[in-house]
Amino acid sequence: MEKNEGMISGKDDRQALTLVEIKMENMADENPEVDDEVIVELLLKEITELVIDQGLLSGKALKEDRVTNFVHPEKLKKLVDLSLGDSPLSHGEIFELCKRAVEYSVRTNHPKFLNQLYHGADPVGLAGAWLSEALNTNLYTYEVAPFFMMVEHEVLAHLRSFIGWEDGDGIFTPGGSLANMYGMVLARFNKFPEVKTKGMGNIGELVAFTSQEGHYSILKAAHWIGLGTDNLVMVASDSSGRMIPAELENKIVKALEQKKVPYFVNATAGTTVFGAFDPLEPLAFICKKYDLWLHVDAAWGGGALVSQKHRSLMQGIEMVDSVAWNLHKMLGAPLQCSAFLTKHTNVFHRCNSASATYLFQTDKYYDMRYDTGDKSIQCGRKVDAFKLWLMWKARGNRGLEKMVDNAFECSKYFTRQLSLRPGFRLVIAEPSCTNVCFWYIPPRWRNLPESPEWWGKLSKVAPAIKKRMVEKGSLMVSYQPLVHKNMVNFFRLALHCQPPPTHEDMDFVLNEIERLGRDLDNIH
Amino acid sequence: MEKNEGMISGKDDRQALTLVEIKMENMADENPEVDDEVIVELLLKEITELVIDQGLLSGKALKEDRVTNFVHPEKLKKLVDLSLGDSPLSHGEIFELCKRAVEYSVRTNHPKFLNQLYHGADPVGLAGAWLSEALNTNLYTYEVAPFFMMVEHEVLAHLRSFIGWEDGDGIFTPGGSLANMYGMVLARFNKFPEVKTKGMGNIGELVAFTSQEGHYSILKAAHWIGLGTDNLVMVASDSSGRMIPAELENKIVKALEQKKVPYFVNATAGTTVFGAFDPLEPLAFICKKYDLWLHVDAAWGGGALVSQKHRSLMQGIEMVDSVAWNLHKMLGAPLQCSAFLTKHTNVFHRCNSASATYLFQTDKYYDMRYDTGDKSIQCGRKVDAFKLWLMWKARGNRGLEKMVDNAFECSKYFTRQLSLRPGFRLVIAEPSCTNVCFWYIPPRWRNLPESPEWWGKLSKVAPAIKKRMVEKGSLMVSYQPLVHKNMVNFFRLALHCQPPPTHEDMDFVLNEIERLGRDLDNIH
Repeated sequence: MEKNEGMISGKDDRQALTLVEIKMENMADENPEVDDEVIVELLLKEITELVIDQGLLSGKALKEDRVTNFVHPEKLKKLVDLSLGDSPLSHGEIFELCKRAVEYSVRTNHPKFLNQLYHGADPVGLAGAWLSEALNTNLYTYEVAPFFMMVEHEVLAHLRSFIGWEDGDGIFTPGGSLANMYGMVLARFNKFPEVKTKGMGNIGELVAFTSQEGHYSILKAAHWIGLGTDNLVMVASDSSGRMIPAELENKIVKALEQKKVPYFVNATAGTTVFGAFDPLEPLAFICKKYDLWLHVDAAWGGGALVSQKHRSLMQGIEMVDSVAWNLHKMLGAPLQCSAFLTKHTNVFHRCNSASATYLFQTDKYYDMRYDTGDKSIQCGRKVDAFKLWLMWKARGNRGLEKMVDNAFECSKYFTRQLSLRPGFRLVIAEPSCTNVCFWYIPPRWRNLPESPEWWGKLSKVAPAIKKRMVEKGSLMVSYQPLVHKNMVNFFRLALHCQPPPTHEDMDFVLNEIERLGRDLDNIH
Repeated sequence: MEKNEGMISGKDDRQALTLVEIKMENMADENPEVDDEVIVELLLKEITELVIDQGLLSGKALKEDRVTNFVHPEKLKKLVDLSLGDSPLSHGEIFELCKRAVEYSVRTNHPKFLNQLYHGADPVGLAGAWLSEALNTNLYTYEVAPFFMMVEHEVLAHLRSFIGWEDGDGIFTPGGSLANMYGMVLARFNKFPEVKTKGMGNIGELVAFTSQEGHYSILKAAHWIGLGTDNLVMVASDSSGRMIPAELENKIVKALEQKKVPYFVNATAGTTVFGAFDPLEPLAFICKKYDLWLHVDAAWGGGALVSQKHRSLMQGIEMVDSVAWNLHKMLGAPLQCSAFLTKHTNVFHRCNSASATYLFQTDKYYDMRYDTGDKSIQCGRKVDAFKLWLMWKARGNRGLEKMVDNAFECSKYFTRQLSLRPGFRLVIAEPSCTNVCFWYIPPRWRNLPESPEWWGKLSKVAPAIKKRMVEKGSLMVSYQPLVHKNMVNFFRLALHCQPPPTHEDMDFVLNEIERLGRDLDNIH
């Protein structure tokens, strides 16, 4: 093995070399042969150096870094040999592939990656993820996962305390979509336990409700659980994207008149596009009146719960039946980290259990109440709670609160600055969450009448700017139309805890969009 | 910060200290202040050292290590402060918690951890997992995951090639249970596309089939998808645990006579307990005859596909409609790594798509055929393919084949040795996969008549030995009864690629069980 196989592309090769040299020296002392296991140890150390030197830790993106080094799919296939075959590659070749992975991946930890509802991983969370990956633990029984099982119980209880529940149940799930599906299935079982054995055949035509702005996972789940997307009723939202309680009640009454069986309402705390918070308190009263399960998709907005200043956005949350909360979104836990939480204590296990004797033996040598596996729709389940627990330990409630408050403050700053700039227009006047939706209007169109043609042309501006920002690699902000509100393509900025956004970053976004878009007057 | 915060408990503190010193020197050159980010870099390096020094790499378990350092849940709560609160902990305290996590976690990479169908993580796979964790990529669009998206396409195609499909579709899913649910939902949509919009109400009483030995995830899925567990028909298996094709046909005919609608058969390649392979070819002919979707749960046995010697266990696999294959099981990819694969090219995307405009814009600047997110029931999705790709690159088909062959060879050796020892009895005569099921009979019972009382007493032996092995920490092998076969508690050994088992390990298992169990004649 040549020394330079340990080298890392980038600015500072010194530490990587030092590590290789240390290892070489040790090997000379202890073991004159370079064996497979030593190579693997080297590889892990090199990965560590690569992650550090390439600035992949949240908040450590190098100033000169591009957010993305975009190449088209067919070109990428030519740049890297992706194929798998008979023969093994050398350690040097493997590390080379790792460097290519970094080169052609998006820098999610870059302060200018504002494209999605997730962002860079909290670096302490990352340390936790690395450790649990190395331990390769499967989270179904206390027997095989003693430490992590207790950690998960602790974290779930802590999350429930922010909702205002002293008791309850829950589980970590691979993403918010599945957490929402847990809610839909649990609600159905709670009302019709016979559905578990008999299926959907004999319980009438079930109907669920969500707002027009609700996440598409509810739609997908409606298909999977056998409800059918036609039986997911879309409730109208107001101009800020909040579900209108009176509209919900109308739809429930209508369903009842049609002899259908309303059973489930999905409210959203922090909608995907606008960041709207559905009014939980009035929705809870309606659900109580009609005996419906109220689930809250707080995948995105849940982060506000840790802030004394912003948790009132979810006033009434303690009244609902279940909550989905993605800790990998606003709070910056590494992907995947989603909790499903319910205030009900006696129904969750009954709903999902299959009591497989090979895994959940009843004659075990320890207190089996801690075995959570049979509550899950998965069998093997990755440890997602530990990384969150470790970062929460490192930051404390107060540390996380500060970071959430900073994200909110920056979104207010951005909104204010945007309002002052000619050519920028807010899509909704006062964003509630840390997403800000806006159009950019090129200079010569600003005083023209806003005809359907004008809007038609404007719909092409965001995609054109997006293409340019990706090619330049300077910034990533998403765009989308909102068809049911008759809104053409607009940008959506989304702010997070990791890395903490700054006013300087916000100014950059506005300046950069202006730079990239001001000559688009002639777009067709 | 004190120097000894960087120290690692274990045999060799030298490198950890060296790392701290290197960092200290560097800081003196570059930045006189110890800031948060430097601490985090240190933490990552310390985790790396901890993983290496504590022997957490597969095949690197230290000889003196216990498989588990078992303490009861209530005691663990006293040993480690699990609670989360307002204030942050110091770097030293955080690292201390990481060490406690290692101390009280099961060593899944230990050669004597033979308890489950997963095991230690392939160390190259672990390096890949660390890198993708650091990049914190969400796998839904090429835009945000260019490199990993292409890798997933490549890996899925490679896996399909082992099944014998030149074309097809698929996705990585968080575990085999969900991969099986993908199959049940896709089969239903393929036959009744209207179920997506209309639900289960108007398509008759659907029925699915699985064997008595099939995994419980099929049962759980039957509940979730609205089929109902009563509509999952259990087909009898033979004495080796293989589904009996004639029994399947009988059950299908019976369902048709009852005016039910058979639509789906789950065959298993490598059952959880016995490791039986259902006979795919005759099952495929029956499914063709009655127009049923044939899915194969190859979560466990799929590993045999990479072996020229053992792939005939799955003869006929190319005839089936879909396959679930957990690469984190026999092949040793880090958890979670499960593929759902189908030979059908035109139905998967249609089945699961919701066409959310905020994510899957139709006016993008690149070829959107690579955006796989809308095929998924998840929205955010963790990168699971890269770690597998990297380890496959490092080992090649041939390297993985050798490891699979070694696991099979060791299970044959174990079976042979077991047959020669008094007091050990095989549950099934010739295990097909790398699981071996057996009873241990204490000395004084060996020549007694095997009455119901005798079996009743024997049922207590495996739990008693298990308790002892866990308390001693010398070995972990699971046990279970098999109620439908009227079999009392027996042990199940399960062999994997990582770390490669040896004959010495096999001898140890038999010796240790004998040591722990030979005085159990008087158990009540």
